[in-house]
Amino acid sequence: MELVTISDIRAAASLVAPVVVRTPLLRFDDRLSVKPESLQPVGAFKLRGAYHALARLTDEVRARGVVAFSSGNHAQAVAFAARAFGVPAVIVLPENAPAVKIAATRGWGATVELVPMADREARAYELAESLGATLIPPFDHRDVIAGQGTVGLEIVADRPEVDVVLVPVSGGGLVSGVATAVKALRPAARVIGVEPELAGDAAESLRAGELVRWQAVERERTSADGLRAEPSELTFAHMRAYVDDIVTVSEEEIAEAIRRLARDTRLVVEPSGAVAVAAYLQRTEEWPARTVAVVSGGNIDPDVFAKIMQ
Amino acid sequence: MELVTISDIRAAASLVAPVVVRTPLLRFDDRLSVKPESLQPVGAFKLRGAYHALARLTDEVRARGVVAFSSGNHAQAVAFAARAFGVPAVIVLPENAPAVKIAATRGWGATVELVPMADREARAYELAESLGATLIPPFDHRDVIAGQGTVGLEIVADRPEVDVVLVPVSGGGLVSGVATAVKALRPAARVIGVEPELAGDAAESLRAGELVRWQAVERERTSADGLRAEPSELTFAHMRAYVDDIVTVSEEEIAEAIRRLARDTRLVVEPSGAVAVAAYLQRTEEWPARTVAVVSGGNIDPDVFAKIMQ
Repeated sequence: MELVTISDIRAAASLVAPVVVRTPLLRFDDRLSVKPESLQPVGAFKLRGAYHALARLTDEVRARGVVAFSSGNHAQAVAFAARAFGVPAVIVLPENAPAVKIAATRGWGATVELVPMADREARAYELAESLGATLIPPFDHRDVIAGQGTVGLEIVADRPEVDVVLVPVSGGGLVSGVATAVKALRPAARVIGVEPELAGDAAESLRAGELVRWQAVERERTSADGLRAEPSELTFAHMRAYVDDIVTVSEEEIAEAIRRLARDTRLVVEPSGAVAVAAYLQRTEEWPARTVAVVSGGNIDPDVFAKIMQ
Repeated sequence: MELVTISDIRAAASLVAPVVVRTPLLRFDDRLSVKPESLQPVGAFKLRGAYHALARLTDEVRARGVVAFSSGNHAQAVAFAARAFGVPAVIVLPENAPAVKIAATRGWGATVELVPMADREARAYELAESLGATLIPPFDHRDVIAGQGTVGLEIVADRPEVDVVLVPVSGGGLVSGVATAVKALRPAARVIGVEPELAGDAAESLRAGELVRWQAVERERTSADGLRAEPSELTFAHMRAYVDDIVTVSEEEIAEAIRRLARDTRLVVEPSGAVAVAAYLQRTEEWPARTVAVVSGGNIDPDVFAKIMQ
């Protein structure tokens, strides 16, 4: 299986520069810095991969539009990227998606199609076929992985002596890209994935040396709604090649990390975005002096956020 | 009176680069971007001016230490800057300062001296005298103004065609520096100061063409605790030279801006830091296409923040 290379990621960096925010590293404490991808337009790193995937299409293909079927940050990212390129986007959402999410997706100019949860993926492929549009997958695609890898490129540029990079893991697009970049540029650094205990399938898989599947109903127990997907063969191949370990955090540790990020770095972070900092806080004393945690997103329901902050 | 120049600000930019975060502009909506100075270490733009003031001291003078008597973000900034230079800092705080603020100041390695509120300034000057240390004023100093001006330099670098820059006003160090930079580099842009209605003394002064003094007890009514100071002759001279207007916002408008900043840009912002966005929201349709609001700080009591977010 052909893995993404550092050259792919470097090329992605120049393609995404017009719309992606060059996020700075922010001080969390004397040893930890955070990479606040929650500050991207649409509130998550997903814009990097989605925009890069669109940028790599030919003008002709892109003009026919794009389709996505995520209900989360990836859908927002595809809608935003399509708007930036001035091409149509259709986002397939489950009928029970929150009204605020539907409105946000429409706010970027995308057409929203609501279907029963179970039909989302099939309907998205059907739509892409009938429209001649391109389906942009959330992580199982080399261009998406290369786009997410620009996070790793920037971390090493800003902290060349980094010792450890902590990265949230779900489908694995982010950790695959970041690990590829970090291992190429700073081989001495460790790259550690982080999952919720309640969706710890990638951690178990990496230990087993093969993909271990958890039921969706199990993975859906975590409050970290962005971390309920499972790796693909492609992302798992990157993890086996470049990720040193995957650790897990509890739901209470995630909530505490959200509180600490609000207080100490003044960031609004969603549960999925806080797991890397939760892993740091779990055993603060054990991490080396130059640790970086990727804060992957900030799209949290204001009521949920207010409750956690109390 | 000798005003700060764009050369002073350019020189400041290279001096503060080692510790100041190069904050990106973040998308708020199609017309407004925000400059999130809440992301600086210590959570406010104040680090720029304080660090610059220390950087401009000779090694010998700086080694004797620094003193500050703010109870807010400036004290944290001086303590942080002193720590970065490895020199002692004494921060004079009022006896009734919140325990969390005292602990934070000590956390940066500063010595805290608690005195009755009314004695703060006198005690700070006395200490500086007896220790041979340098008092770093919060805004009434050319080096401090030049340091804050680097915010304006970065805004124009990132958005060369900016039409309007909205800036919080208290003692006026920030708005003086930002206006100096913006008017030098992009004369067509308007620079608008923003104050709480309940502490609108600078707005009244600018309209009157002379410093109008409000009682401290009046200025202290606003929840924006960082905007209760009053301009000095030096900062007012900059405002008269470079600031186009100063507008005011209500307490409810400030709270709404805090909610919108949390939801739409995923930032935790203190009341003082939210006034420029509040001014934008007050008459959204009237601002031009390329407006930038400076979000000056994010140090809000977690309980107060949780209450506003509900």
